[in-house]
Amino acid sequence: MAKLRVVLVEPKNQGNVGAVARAMQHFGVEELVLVNPCPLGPEAHQRAMHGDDILVAAKVVSDFESAIKDADLIVGTSGVDTDSEKRFARIAVRPREFAAKIQQADGVVALLFGREDFGLIDEEIRRCDLLVKVPAADEYPILNLSHAATILLYEVFLEKAPSKTARPISALEREKLHTALSDLLDATDYPAHKRPRTKIMVRRLLGRAIPSKWEFHALMGVFQRATKRIRRLEGKP
Amino acid sequence: MAKLRVVLVEPKNQGNVGAVARAMQHFGVEELVLVNPCPLGPEAHQRAMHGDDILVAAKVVSDFESAIKDADLIVGTSGVDTDSEKRFARIAVRPREFAAKIQQADGVVALLFGREDFGLIDEEIRRCDLLVKVPAADEYPILNLSHAATILLYEVFLEKAPSKTARPISALEREKLHTALSDLLDATDYPAHKRPRTKIMVRRLLGRAIPSKWEFHALMGVFQRATKRIRRLEGKP
Repeated sequence: MAKLRVVLVEPKNQGNVGAVARAMQHFGVEELVLVNPCPLGPEAHQRAMHGDDILVAAKVVSDFESAIKDADLIVGTSGVDTDSEKRFARIAVRPREFAAKIQQADGVVALLFGREDFGLIDEEIRRCDLLVKVPAADEYPILNLSHAATILLYEVFLEKAPSKTARPISALEREKLHTALSDLLDATDYPAHKRPRTKIMVRRLLGRAIPSKWEFHALMGVFQRATKRIRRLEGKP
Repeated sequence: MAKLRVVLVEPKNQGNVGAVARAMQHFGVEELVLVNPCPLGPEAHQRAMHGDDILVAAKVVSDFESAIKDADLIVGTSGVDTDSEKRFARIAVRPREFAAKIQQADGVVALLFGREDFGLIDEEIRRCDLLVKVPAADEYPILNLSHAATILLYEVFLEKAPSKTARPISALEREKLHTALSDLLDATDYPAHKRPRTKIMVRRLLGRAIPSKWEFHALMGVFQRATKRIRRLEGKP
């Protein structure tokens, strides 16, 4: 997995710079390089929140080339992309493709974000090995700089972080649940011709929901208690 | 595909409200509801950029219930989730799972974002059919409100491929199902202290599974039949 370096090229709004640092901290990316940034005052630090360490440690450089020095892969972000192969320099991949690609990469990946108003200039774009663009509903892009950065950092984070969920029930527990349902159908004299359908429907529903252990116990409780209650009232064991 | 309604619950920072409107415009989501928001001045409109139409059209309500009225699925966003299955009410899915699920849903999905400082309160969380959380590198979440919204809107936008299968149940049917469960718990003398937990668990399970009309009827059949059987055996109507 490559190491990500976030590069903001001539950011004009200090709030955006702070917000990018905050998002970096959230997704565990540390290296920030600023090319000719606007002055960074209290607003930038305030917006950075817990990402202020990143902002404070940010390297400020005066030219584009210094920011991409030593980078093994240079990735530009572009609001404007194109379907025209004539303007091939602007053909971009989506954030998810980008994340998958850099997952395979090694070394340092410099991820460049351009100016708030007109992005990266052609000369900078031409230095990029890869262009990435966040898709939009509208034909022209209106995503804020820090929001675009957040989406890219999020995709990279997901690509390297294993998905964590609650412990799902085991196959055995799943079958116990179906047996408990079956017992309940017996207890209620559920019409025989409807049973297979009902059982399959509940099976499908649980299959989709992927119940946790706790939900398993809650559902078992409901089914078993109802069955017991009926049996007791009927005078059966 | 469900229609998304973005609900901001008591936002305190007008810049955030504007930034959310901007992200909504970017990803083609129009309906914004604000519960008791801070005053919205020039900063909110400036941050909204091309999303200002959405901000201007936003519905302002004074209570939480008005914001989720008519919603077919209520989805909360939570910064704090838990691995503890004992704190099941806070167990959350990831944005991508959420997007895939609501792709199958129909009607209106209310997507709730809580206060910048302490999110949604427990009472609001309990009303949710589904909880979603943006994963973080750090153990505690530091994503800005509008950044969290951006990631969720982005995931929903990506998911928008027409692949609708079975008709999902409506909000009314969903509530009927919960009432039928409640009746069954009554009939079984289900321990009072366990009821809230069991009800929330079933609510979450159904929220995740997004039952079809047919599955609704199957489950209603099981619950109602068991309750009736118990009542008849008890000699009650």
